[in-house]
Amino acid sequence: MSTYFDAFDHRRALADYPIGEAFAQRMATLSVDALRALQEQRLASLLARAWQVPFYRRLWGGQGIEPGDIRGLDDLPKLPRFTKADIMASIEAHPPLGDFHGTRPGEPMILHTTSGTTGRAQPLLFGPTSREIQNILLARAYRLQGLRDDDVVQSVYGFGMINGGHYIRETILHYTRALLLPAGTGVETRSAQQVRLMQDFGVTVLLGFADYIRTLAQVARSEGIEPGRDIRIRRILGHMGRESKAEIGALWGGAEVYDWYGVGDTGIIAAEGPDRQGMHLFEDAHVVEIVDPATGAARADGEDGNLVTTVLFKEDVYPIVRFDTQDVTHRLSGPSPNGWPLARIAGFRGRSDNMVKLRGINVYPHAIAALLGADDGCTGEYLCRVRRDAEGRDQMRVEIETARADDPALEHALAERLRAALGVTIEVSLVAPGALAEATGVESRQKAIRLIDERGA
Amino acid sequence: MSTYFDAFDHRRALADYPIGEAFAQRMATLSVDALRALQEQRLASLLARAWQVPFYRRLWGGQGIEPGDIRGLDDLPKLPRFTKADIMASIEAHPPLGDFHGTRPGEPMILHTTSGTTGRAQPLLFGPTSREIQNILLARAYRLQGLRDDDVVQSVYGFGMINGGHYIRETILHYTRALLLPAGTGVETRSAQQVRLMQDFGVTVLLGFADYIRTLAQVARSEGIEPGRDIRIRRILGHMGRESKAEIGALWGGAEVYDWYGVGDTGIIAAEGPDRQGMHLFEDAHVVEIVDPATGAARADGEDGNLVTTVLFKEDVYPIVRFDTQDVTHRLSGPSPNGWPLARIAGFRGRSDNMVKLRGINVYPHAIAALLGADDGCTGEYLCRVRRDAEGRDQMRVEIETARADDPALEHALAERLRAALGVTIEVSLVAPGALAEATGVESRQKAIRLIDERGA
Repeated sequence: MSTYFDAFDHRRALADYPIGEAFAQRMATLSVDALRALQEQRLASLLARAWQVPFYRRLWGGQGIEPGDIRGLDDLPKLPRFTKADIMASIEAHPPLGDFHGTRPGEPMILHTTSGTTGRAQPLLFGPTSREIQNILLARAYRLQGLRDDDVVQSVYGFGMINGGHYIRETILHYTRALLLPAGTGVETRSAQQVRLMQDFGVTVLLGFADYIRTLAQVARSEGIEPGRDIRIRRILGHMGRESKAEIGALWGGAEVYDWYGVGDTGIIAAEGPDRQGMHLFEDAHVVEIVDPATGAARADGEDGNLVTTVLFKEDVYPIVRFDTQDVTHRLSGPSPNGWPLARIAGFRGRSDNMVKLRGINVYPHAIAALLGADDGCTGEYLCRVRRDAEGRDQMRVEIETARADDPALEHALAERLRAALGVTIEVSLVAPGALAEATGVESRQKAIRLIDERGA
Repeated sequence: MSTYFDAFDHRRALADYPIGEAFAQRMATLSVDALRALQEQRLASLLARAWQVPFYRRLWGGQGIEPGDIRGLDDLPKLPRFTKADIMASIEAHPPLGDFHGTRPGEPMILHTTSGTTGRAQPLLFGPTSREIQNILLARAYRLQGLRDDDVVQSVYGFGMINGGHYIRETILHYTRALLLPAGTGVETRSAQQVRLMQDFGVTVLLGFADYIRTLAQVARSEGIEPGRDIRIRRILGHMGRESKAEIGALWGGAEVYDWYGVGDTGIIAAEGPDRQGMHLFEDAHVVEIVDPATGAARADGEDGNLVTTVLFKEDVYPIVRFDTQDVTHRLSGPSPNGWPLARIAGFRGRSDNMVKLRGINVYPHAIAALLGADDGCTGEYLCRVRRDAEGRDQMRVEIETARADDPALEHALAERLRAALGVTIEVSLVAPGALAEATGVESRQKAIRLIDERGA
């Protein structure tokens, strides 16, 4: 019989998408032109596959585009973007799995869902090859960020239908020698138990979202377990967003913290390296564009826009051509600090579909994370609520957890700090540490909720 | 670099441990003598590996046994059994992972824990080869029980550190073409959401423990979703224990229900087939003994005892030689109904470490499951409590969920039924449906709790 193992050639995948030393060597010798030629070749193959999928025939054909019209990278922007909303519409029209995918005989399909903070969960579909290549690319990032064979790794990404935990588990098991504790979120392994596991098993690396990893440092201390002394974490590799890496590293007794970026549909897209100068785009695997959310026009270096990606290795079940992640970032200018041919981005700065316009100013709730200092007793937990007042103007209020919740001077100082940083007045309410845990779901959800929209339908 | 895929040869494993049609063909031609010769050969190799592991050198050497003393299957009972308690003692003495395992250079290790109903979680360790062979053996059972390529499968085994959900996910993804929804327990996917997933995705097969699968049928109806009409489950493959398969099948609108048996350390050991005449022991992979829990003496066919297994393929990280599962069952007499060379067992009948002795009678709380009829409004949920009275005698009381909780005649009838079946008087208290959910953890735990021991230390 044909198995998962027959459907995927791991030696070829690792040759095509090197990791560890092989990645460093490839980058040291690959020119920008050679990278572009590789992208052209992979794009041609991907487009041929995408034309076999009904979703793309509708999306592209509906705009009068025919096979052959897109001759290469320069033509790519002529194809329309699509978003999660288009995938959900495809599912609505063709339940239960939509028409955005196609298997070939003998090809298994892997089903998960996104952990999105709003709306119905979106199904994610993978074939063995695309799944394993995204695992390889994440292993590339972990190796780049210092993961070693002798590390003991605890992952706090969630399981169940959610993709995250499974993705990380496959990556560590299949492409590293580290020992994994797949603890999951706080509903799978309670937070007090999470920190005991770290202590009992001598965990050295944490993987997860910044919010929950920060919460766990507080839980450890309240359990009488001192990070740095009783738990010796040397690396935290995860989704940092706008959080302060220095502060999270300090909470864990001086761990080095590295960020990476990716979405459920595509897997990892970019990662920080030891150079600490932005996130390196894995451009042998992705063609990334930063575009104006409304017009789709390309953004210049340094200008925030939506990250749109074309995933060059996704030729099996669900090809991805110009997927608009609706995540906001910008491209960094200047050459690679490592002499690599890869461009760089700033990393996740917010979601354009979570953006709130207040008196003409765009505010991303995630930007608030960077403004909450531990010096002020802030736990880092916050929750924004937006409502529309009687005059039809949108107003935002943010609840902020702090040990100094009864200090009106701090409330005033934080409101002033937000106004200065964001350019618009946001009402601040201080609340006690832990008061927001239920509303944000920081211990129970893969991604904490940071915005509640009370403006009505 | 060396990966999981390099450490494991799937073609060889499938040739050694066939599934599907190849399994049926192998069983049709394999004689009892040839099976025994295969076991002898695999055992010799396993013992050589086990002697490299400190745990076995201590356990066996401490009894004056030397390499070479065990010349084959006939000598196997000379080796001491070990239980979960010995593994925990090994961990206590050599934290965090004990000395019952050993990796070889380049060999990755997979860590999970058991979901045990009592005490601290036990670490489980696997290498790629032993892990994948146990996946293959579970795929063998699922195929035997009618799983098809076009099935849509929902698994309600839990994830996180717990092994169960990961084991099932790997099996379905790696060795079947079915589409898996890895929903997990009720804390990973809430029960109402579980039944909506079944409806939305057209689920045809459920995998899990009987307790929670039965609960989900009740949840579906309370959500206005009718099993058999809105959800068309054709197979339920899982851990049935002493539950009524006919009743669970009927709750799901006429699904066929099949049982299998295994434990975390070993993976699957035996499975029912379409013949429905007990569980076939997978004796190409296991040497199974049924022994007296106290003396270790072999039990005759039909006599209950502890199931002790030697796992013939576990030659990599954690060899298993005479592991006493402490699960109680008996061997069935008579030849295989299929003409196979495999012996059969009755399946899980209780845990000897959960056994309660009441006035000289051994009572397994799990045996009560078989005595609660839906005709009496019973949901199938129950919880035993054992305490010691002033005279030092042990007394058991069982709380039973039923829609007729205020019917004293039913309480009397159930108490009489338990007395007749178990041979000893047990006090019965009827409670309303759902009243026990929190105490048993039926929606939140991998295995529901059926016994609370209130006898003190």
